[in-house]
Amino acid sequence: MLPVVVVHGGAGHIPNKRAEFSCAGVRAATRGGYAVLRGGGSAMDAVVEAVTLLENNPIYNAGCGSVLNEQGVEMDAIVMDGRTLASGAVSAVKGIANPVQLARLVMDKTSHLCLTADGASQFARAMGVQEVPEESLITDYARMRWRKNLDPDSNPVECQMGKMGTVGAVAVDLEGNVACATSTGGMLNKMEGRVGDTACIGCGGYADNRAGAVSPTGHGEAIMKVTLSRLILFYMEQGRSAQDAADEALVYMRERVQGLGGVVVVDPHGVWAARFSSRQMAWAAAQNEQLHYGLYAGEDFTQPIQ
Amino acid sequence: MLPVVVVHGGAGHIPNKRAEFSCAGVRAATRGGYAVLRGGGSAMDAVVEAVTLLENNPIYNAGCGSVLNEQGVEMDAIVMDGRTLASGAVSAVKGIANPVQLARLVMDKTSHLCLTADGASQFARAMGVQEVPEESLITDYARMRWRKNLDPDSNPVECQMGKMGTVGAVAVDLEGNVACATSTGGMLNKMEGRVGDTACIGCGGYADNRAGAVSPTGHGEAIMKVTLSRLILFYMEQGRSAQDAADEALVYMRERVQGLGGVVVVDPHGVWAARFSSRQMAWAAAQNEQLHYGLYAGEDFTQPIQ
Repeated sequence: MLPVVVVHGGAGHIPNKRAEFSCAGVRAATRGGYAVLRGGGSAMDAVVEAVTLLENNPIYNAGCGSVLNEQGVEMDAIVMDGRTLASGAVSAVKGIANPVQLARLVMDKTSHLCLTADGASQFARAMGVQEVPEESLITDYARMRWRKNLDPDSNPVECQMGKMGTVGAVAVDLEGNVACATSTGGMLNKMEGRVGDTACIGCGGYADNRAGAVSPTGHGEAIMKVTLSRLILFYMEQGRSAQDAADEALVYMRERVQGLGGVVVVDPHGVWAARFSSRQMAWAAAQNEQLHYGLYAGEDFTQPIQ
Repeated sequence: MLPVVVVHGGAGHIPNKRAEFSCAGVRAATRGGYAVLRGGGSAMDAVVEAVTLLENNPIYNAGCGSVLNEQGVEMDAIVMDGRTLASGAVSAVKGIANPVQLARLVMDKTSHLCLTADGASQFARAMGVQEVPEESLITDYARMRWRKNLDPDSNPVECQMGKMGTVGAVAVDLEGNVACATSTGGMLNKMEGRVGDTACIGCGGYADNRAGAVSPTGHGEAIMKVTLSRLILFYMEQGRSAQDAADEALVYMRERVQGLGGVVVVDPHGVWAARFSSRQMAWAAAQNEQLHYGLYAGEDFTQPIQ
């Protein structure tokens, strides 16, 4: 069963033109994460590798391709290591190509769990992380979406939920350690300084070797209200499978706070799930030399991982 | 049993000279919150009133009296309303006398749950919240602690944990609604932009009419790793009393991540607890026209509330 990595490219409504690219990107990121695991790398190394690949892919709302607000691009990211409950996060950070790597540096190199805004930038400089021009993170599509979002009838939640997605990954390595990573440009049209679920431990991700690991996507404020990632792991601690726990938590989020979203989940034995209450979620998983993937509910295509 | 409000002034090691003031302050804040409840005010109104009184009291590490870092004073605060799971938070905010009131405005006036740093300041200005000179938030004691902390043998966790405390409150109103509020100047010597548990839903507070409400204090990074507030409410959902759930979660935090802290907890019926694994926690509770209070483990002094 081990190792395994599961990746998502955001829950929501993905335009047909972009669906193929979105699915191809999560498959490529999953292959990248799986190669790390097969080489004996840790679950943490694998999820950071997978999310880095997605951040570098302009199709997703993370790193290059992030949505815009009036301040340009402000990004959140988190990582968590299930061995020790160590975690690192950054919120509202600008001018960084790979926020997930900066989140990992917060975990590895500070005594803190989260750095925000200018403090995160200052830490990045101290760590020698290269600053990139904001223009390099902005795609024509993000600019078009931003202009369209200024229409009086636009729906910011819908804009966050689809079109361009938050990205994330969970993994179990050969030693049975779990980890998660999530990265996002946040919500289109968000206020300056808005911090969503992604930078918030228990909301935008949680990993515990005793239960499993979760990375979510969807309406950030709804995910926060129900602390979605921690909720799923509580259900799993009570004996539910990864899939049942994910489904139960997504139903709860829809009924209690009218929120839609999706999650990728693993338990420490390598049982995994990719579940969503939104119309679509691009996801892929690698296990036993097979690549699984899907976009609509019920899909589970497989192919050899090569 | 209703209404009830329970307040804390920080867990840790409180110097003798300050203990009396710290205990008097939480009693006064509890009386203030209880007066709101007795007048038919909501649990949310009561916890914001109590925490505002504590922020305005220079003895605590919140609002005026906050600890310093190299950037001066950066504060975090959160509120949560158990009726709807609505929540508001600010992180790394400067130049505001009452971060808890700004957190409530985030909840009431935006579609977001958390605003950080400059974005939070900009929102404060848009809401007409008065900016205050940083000097007005800095006490001689905070300055002395900051200088002392620069000693090579200082211990930042100990500095956060005691001496000056995070503040918080939980309440149940006459209608059975629960709420929580927490506010802090964070950890002495923290890095610029460090966000601790207080601004993070499920960590620095959680409130749900179906389970209860929690406000914690202690080592922020440890509280985050175990999502302490949400953990306690999960235990209560499984049938544990407020006290048993608090004790179990504090033991778990100590054993799993070597963290000390304390919490105030209520359930929707008005059963309350003030529990801590640290040496001391200044706390007070008001119920049935009685004021309860204590500082060391096992203490529960009572007096008529007047």
